[in-house]
Amino acid sequence: MAKIATITLNTAYDLVGRLKRIELGEVNTVETLGLFPAGKGINVAKVLHDLDVAVAVSGFLGEENQGDFSQLFKTLKLDDKFQRVPGKTRINVKITETEADVTDLNFLGYQIDDASWAKFVADSLNWSQDFDVIAVCGSLPRGVSPEQFTAWLNQLGQHGVKVVLDSSHAALTAGLKANPWLVKPNHRELEAWIGKPLHNLEQIIAAAKQLKAQGIANVIISMGAEGSVWLSDQAVVQARPPKCENVVSTVGAGDSMVAGLIYGISQGWQQAQTLAFASAVSAFAVSQSNVGISDRTLVDDILQQVQINVIEG
Amino acid sequence: MAKIATITLNTAYDLVGRLKRIELGEVNTVETLGLFPAGKGINVAKVLHDLDVAVAVSGFLGEENQGDFSQLFKTLKLDDKFQRVPGKTRINVKITETEADVTDLNFLGYQIDDASWAKFVADSLNWSQDFDVIAVCGSLPRGVSPEQFTAWLNQLGQHGVKVVLDSSHAALTAGLKANPWLVKPNHRELEAWIGKPLHNLEQIIAAAKQLKAQGIANVIISMGAEGSVWLSDQAVVQARPPKCENVVSTVGAGDSMVAGLIYGISQGWQQAQTLAFASAVSAFAVSQSNVGISDRTLVDDILQQVQINVIEG
Repeated sequence: MAKIATITLNTAYDLVGRLKRIELGEVNTVETLGLFPAGKGINVAKVLHDLDVAVAVSGFLGEENQGDFSQLFKTLKLDDKFQRVPGKTRINVKITETEADVTDLNFLGYQIDDASWAKFVADSLNWSQDFDVIAVCGSLPRGVSPEQFTAWLNQLGQHGVKVVLDSSHAALTAGLKANPWLVKPNHRELEAWIGKPLHNLEQIIAAAKQLKAQGIANVIISMGAEGSVWLSDQAVVQARPPKCENVVSTVGAGDSMVAGLIYGISQGWQQAQTLAFASAVSAFAVSQSNVGISDRTLVDDILQQVQINVIEG
Repeated sequence: MAKIATITLNTAYDLVGRLKRIELGEVNTVETLGLFPAGKGINVAKVLHDLDVAVAVSGFLGEENQGDFSQLFKTLKLDDKFQRVPGKTRINVKITETEADVTDLNFLGYQIDDASWAKFVADSLNWSQDFDVIAVCGSLPRGVSPEQFTAWLNQLGQHGVKVVLDSSHAALTAGLKANPWLVKPNHRELEAWIGKPLHNLEQIIAAAKQLKAQGIANVIISMGAEGSVWLSDQAVVQARPPKCENVVSTVGAGDSMVAGLIYGISQGWQQAQTLAFASAVSAFAVSQSNVGISDRTLVDDILQQVQINVIEG
């Protein structure tokens, strides 16, 4: 069995609530929908745990409010390789007003100084040699520059580990320069990378080929309800999940897809089987408000309805 | 040395932040000023800990986000007698906009069911027999009625423990019916209890005597910058702290006063000495944003400037 780790450099707590209307300057009572240790790498690890895969987790945690993270790692038996740093893990407060948009109040958290980053780089390059697949997920914390991120990812890849990158914006741009083993930008992120709109599957595949040509072994483009397409050295494969009748939340759909991909890879599955499974896990995630797989048979039901289309290869 | 416990039935996390202006429906970045396990009884215990007094803490904690509380108890070596209940401890988000009022977003937490309350009553009446002073602090959680609270306080007092009540609104009204050993309403709360405005010290003392006459051994009325007045069976004593030049935050001033009172009582000090010390601890709290005593000599400096006035006795 492949050894797997996820790394979340910019962890967060998500505090999610709902009320009728926010009155500024007043005391508002908010219905609590959830408070959970979050961050994309944590979500990927949760899903892999639910698929009975042992996972190590790493990145940074603020030492002042690490309690619920440590508790979660214990509960899920995740191998805790997080580096504690002075300060707090950031908190993202998400409030939905009835018939209105979501207001996000993102409380700033820890800032990584050069000494902490140097320690993290040295430690992670050391322990990563024991792992086969490492997923690097999410944004960069304050204090870590895109250049530092690219340099670290380059070193990580040189040690022979399969680096999976799932990020966006500045961290994605910086990460792509390090040619990870697998990347999973979505349609919009691919457009941003290539600098022009992509109107159909042909254009998306052409752009993804250009990204792959720079030296990335596996490029997977997620396209929401349209499914996803995976360009490897062997083939170009598209997967289309069944139409989801009951979309509850798209939060965590991307993380679930990454977990599904890593699962298939760790099982030694072929490209088409892996992509079909990842599509099913991702489609399942959309049907629930939280992240994770409570019932594997529900995923298997969706899997039977996933359409696979081998475009090349 | 007297054995001391504090009980917080409705614990909370305080998440405090600041930004220029909240844009509803948008993503806002908030400067984080603090995130801490809160609740009046926790604050009282923190101050007593800083005064080198061993304290037990009890009440309810939501089992889903207890991590930082458990961590705090370990760090401060507080004897943890909290009962864990299903759900989350509530979170009070306090956001200050530049040159604007504070917006409070109070996320609802656990609700106490009858079985949990019955267990708490039985357990607390059992362990309370080992204690000399128990401070019951703060509001009632959802699910606990004022009648249940009065009945429990009555039983607690019958076991011979000195019950100190520090609360407001419905919990204060219900608690006063149980005739605790010591109560510390503020000027406004005393007005609400007696049902009319109190314009000067004479009127305040007359109202406090009425409250004392119902069977409360010690009535202490805090009057903000005007200091406080303590009616006991022996005397009526007023303490006036020095004028605070640099008011940072009045949060925790009342809790600090309660801690100071309990400290003096546990040391066997006389009424005037105890009240002077409690006034100094409370005045010190106003000069800082957090709760606790970082430097005892700063409190002693204030103590030398506290004026004591024995009105009767």
